[in-house]
Amino acid sequence: MNISVATYGSHSALQILKGAKDEGLRAVLLCPRSRRRLYERFRLADELILVENVEDLLREDVQRNLTSMSSILVPHGTIISDVDIKRFVKDFKVPIFGNRELLVWESDRELKEMLLREAGIEVPRAFSSPDEVDCPVIVKLPGAEGGRGYFVASGRDDLIKKLRKMGVRMNRGLYIQEYVIGVTVYPHFFYSPLREEVELLGVDRRYETNVDSLGRIPASDQLNLNVQPTYEVVGNIPLVLRESMLEKFFDIAERFVEATKKLVSPGMIGPFCIEAICRAPDDIVVFEFSARIVAGTNLFINGSPYSYLLYGEGMSMGRRIAKEIRLACETSELEKIVT
Amino acid sequence: MNISVATYGSHSALQILKGAKDEGLRAVLLCPRSRRRLYERFRLADELILVENVEDLLREDVQRNLTSMSSILVPHGTIISDVDIKRFVKDFKVPIFGNRELLVWESDRELKEMLLREAGIEVPRAFSSPDEVDCPVIVKLPGAEGGRGYFVASGRDDLIKKLRKMGVRMNRGLYIQEYVIGVTVYPHFFYSPLREEVELLGVDRRYETNVDSLGRIPASDQLNLNVQPTYEVVGNIPLVLRESMLEKFFDIAERFVEATKKLVSPGMIGPFCIEAICRAPDDIVVFEFSARIVAGTNLFINGSPYSYLLYGEGMSMGRRIAKEIRLACETSELEKIVT
Amino acid sequence: MNISVATYGSHSALQILKGAKDEGLRAVLLCPRSRRRLYERFRLADELILVENVEDLLREDVQRNLTSMSSILVPHGTIISDVDIKRFVKDFKVPIFGNRELLVWESDRELKEMLLREAGIEVPRAFSSPDEVDCPVIVKLPGAEGGRGYFVASGRDDLIKKLRKMGVRMNRGLYIQEYVIGVTVYPHFFYSPLREEVELLGVDRRYETNVDSLGRIPASDQLNLNVQPTYEVVGNIPLVLRESMLEKFFDIAERFVEATKKLVSPGMIGPFCIEAICRAPDDIVVFEFSARIVAGTNLFINGSPYSYLLYGEGMSMGRRIAKEIRLACETSELEKIVT
Repeated sequence: MNISVATYGSHSALQILKGAKDEGLRAVLLCPRSRRRLYERFRLADELILVENVEDLLREDVQRNLTSMSSILVPHGTIISDVDIKRFVKDFKVPIFGNRELLVWESDRELKEMLLREAGIEVPRAFSSPDEVDCPVIVKLPGAEGGRGYFVASGRDDLIKKLRKMGVRMNRGLYIQEYVIGVTVYPHFFYSPLREEVELLGVDRRYETNVDSLGRIPASDQLNLNVQPTYEVVGNIPLVLRESMLEKFFDIAERFVEATKKLVSPGMIGPFCIEAICRAPDDIVVFEFSARIVAGTNLFINGSPYSYLLYGEGMSMGRRIAKEIRLACETSELEKIVT
Repeated sequence: MNISVATYGSHSALQILKGAKDEGLRAVLLCPRSRRRLYERFRLADELILVENVEDLLREDVQRNLTSMSSILVPHGTIISDVDIKRFVKDFKVPIFGNRELLVWESDRELKEMLLREAGIEVPRAFSSPDEVDCPVIVKLPGAEGGRGYFVASGRDDLIKKLRKMGVRMNRGLYIQEYVIGVTVYPHFFYSPLREEVELLGVDRRYETNVDSLGRIPASDQLNLNVQPTYEVVGNIPLVLRESMLEKFFDIAERFVEATKKLVSPGMIGPFCIEAICRAPDDIVVFEFSARIVAGTNLFINGSPYSYLLYGEGMSMGRRIAKEIRLACETSELEKIVT
Repeated sequence: MNISVATYGSHSALQILKGAKDEGLRAVLLCPRSRRRLYERFRLADELILVENVEDLLREDVQRNLTSMSSILVPHGTIISDVDIKRFVKDFKVPIFGNRELLVWESDRELKEMLLREAGIEVPRAFSSPDEVDCPVIVKLPGAEGGRGYFVASGRDDLIKKLRKMGVRMNRGLYIQEYVIGVTVYPHFFYSPLREEVELLGVDRRYETNVDSLGRIPASDQLNLNVQPTYEVVGNIPLVLRESMLEKFFDIAERFVEATKKLVSPGMIGPFCIEAICRAPDDIVVFEFSARIVAGTNLFINGSPYSYLLYGEGMSMGRRIAKEIRLACETSELEKIVT
């Protein structure tokens, strides 16, 4: 069997392809026609399958093609956001690296919260009505998508005033969450079912427009400008964590893995991210998780301080995935890492 | 012919020297006397020519010296900012890596805008008088230099009020530009005339004083302090871009290269930077370009995530330049990359 | 003699252990029992000595154990903050890499300021009473610790008003310091007594909660929220400095080293950090120094742009320390680098 690694041309595809090649596996790119030029610049794909969009991965000929190349698909954020993920995990018959069921859980707010609760991880409080609010909140308006349609309110009265001003009468569809004041950190973990171990491979913070540009506008000008914050990810900035905080994050990561094993058999496989706000070094709130590779790992295509400690040079998350696939092939344990 | 790479001791000289050596070329440093100690610490220059300042590069003996070593000068930001660039490109007879005429265009606001317009790139709007203003603006006062002498106004009335308060009566010399709200990104490109291809080698954002310190001052204290923002570059912070934005940036970069070919023959050669503000991931405004190596590339002297995809380890912009020179020597195409 | 490198499990221990191994020395970890699991994940310690806390380093059996392994202890921030440092440097009989007396100076504000004054380095002004204040200030309340208990005031009146509001009647224990407006930079230096030379190995800025989250909150919301800034280090962000600023920083670093030689014989040995605020590229104020490895170096476990210029790949500060120890062993000059 001559396994190949396939992914869709977006999000973190470059490092997934590069990682596959560095581990001696064939790299297959499901490339949106409009991005052919982009991916050809990097000369990383051994095979290029042109498609129109993510939906096309469900096309029978595409799946047949992948199967004929013994491909394992590495899913990433675009696959989750751009298709009906429930249908995808049901109808996509090619093996997926990771637990496909978890992708559904990741994209459903209620399942997501259930998983974090099961793991005993502190999350921001949610409020079902503006009247209940007793702290600063961030509010997601109905239909908000991809970082737009949010606003901050300092408390109940401010929230009610702002909703009225926006002409929002009904509370239906509003998502009101505690606004935790603190810095964000996004540690990138990898759970190896072969080694039964959680690894930390990097940390970043997101670089979001326009919210990360506000700090450069003097407060007095901000008041005049009346800017509405948006949270659209444009890129990522590398971080390291205070070493004495690592333990706490590993603890959260392991409890998360345990919870997935309990609720979403066979549990976590491969990369995940615990998206957290630090009120203080020992006061960490998790507002989100990703149960697959995150784009912040693109910072470390040439290795991170943490991956260097574990693997020496050049171990990206993409390569770590390919390495797990290669090891599983060698020991005939592929069934442990694909679903 | 035994080509050497020369540069002036400032800006990005360390990586230019290191890159030359890593590609097997001799490294020549035109070193300001006052910085001799600094550059000697790094032991990168094979030859050190002591000068007083950039102006001295025009001295006949210096040029003779460079010529005797078959030097190619790699120009950078200090060379553009510290001499009369028009005179420099005319009187400096040693070959320059890149298109020397473009250095003139870079340092002339009108030529610069002409080039961006030709490329069909969206730029911030400019206003010839305060009365025309209908959006937030950033204003450059007459004589403003190196990041000082700017202020922000939220609109026409705020602008007029602020100008009056500052005692600015005349509008002559004012430069009034739309203040685009969004995060800044500085992708570092390299156009290879040998390969006829644009490469992305890294991305950064600038770290500017005092504007990047404002966000750490609580808004209420800022109002009391009444701080005037300054935009003086102190350093750089590494970034990666959202992978789905790369295409758009390559498109801008290629249109820029095409425009230079049309207006400033022989067009772009080597490193350049498209300095942009992202209102949203798909809404990018270019406020500036650099037609030579930028200091943000100093972040990636030991390689970047992007250069790793293309070249493996340790490919800095400085080394990429030296590599192009070496390749051009080997194929006798030096005339394609120097002017 | 078969020297080993020992450190305490916290702060920057991972890179100290990794560095020792990369230089061919044995790595000994004094590991707090509660963090055994964390450090075992990274498989870097050749020997693990379990302890309860830093205090335990003074236990006779622990010291005997270290002595039997010819250990040299590499001290870091946790050792300074978590024990009575005066007692520690007196009672800890195992050789310490660096000048143990300097650790005492680092942890005493008056000695610290004396050292910076001796070096002729500009520091923020301090005020002995609120009445003297004539500029923005940052105030440390009595008992403030680890980044909490600070506030900013825009001037004398604002300060007095805020103190009154907080119910602070007495000025005793208050530390009132000029609030310098500008960006922070933390360059990581290494002074080699063997080479008698200062090296720059990296630069970072800290990532502090909650102060680095304020900029993302719109000014109008900040005013409603009335957030008190805290300065607790959560992590670090990598930087490079503008190349024309390096000279100035080397100058400060060398004057600092000279001052330590004069006041705290035998002077600086190994890593130190000059913690600075840049009002402008040529206007640098030093608010703090560390006379040992700082946690910001964790960013560069796999090398930094600066260490790459000097040593090629993978030279972390931890490894640089081990390298100095190895070189000193080889040339029988250990007495130059330990105390």
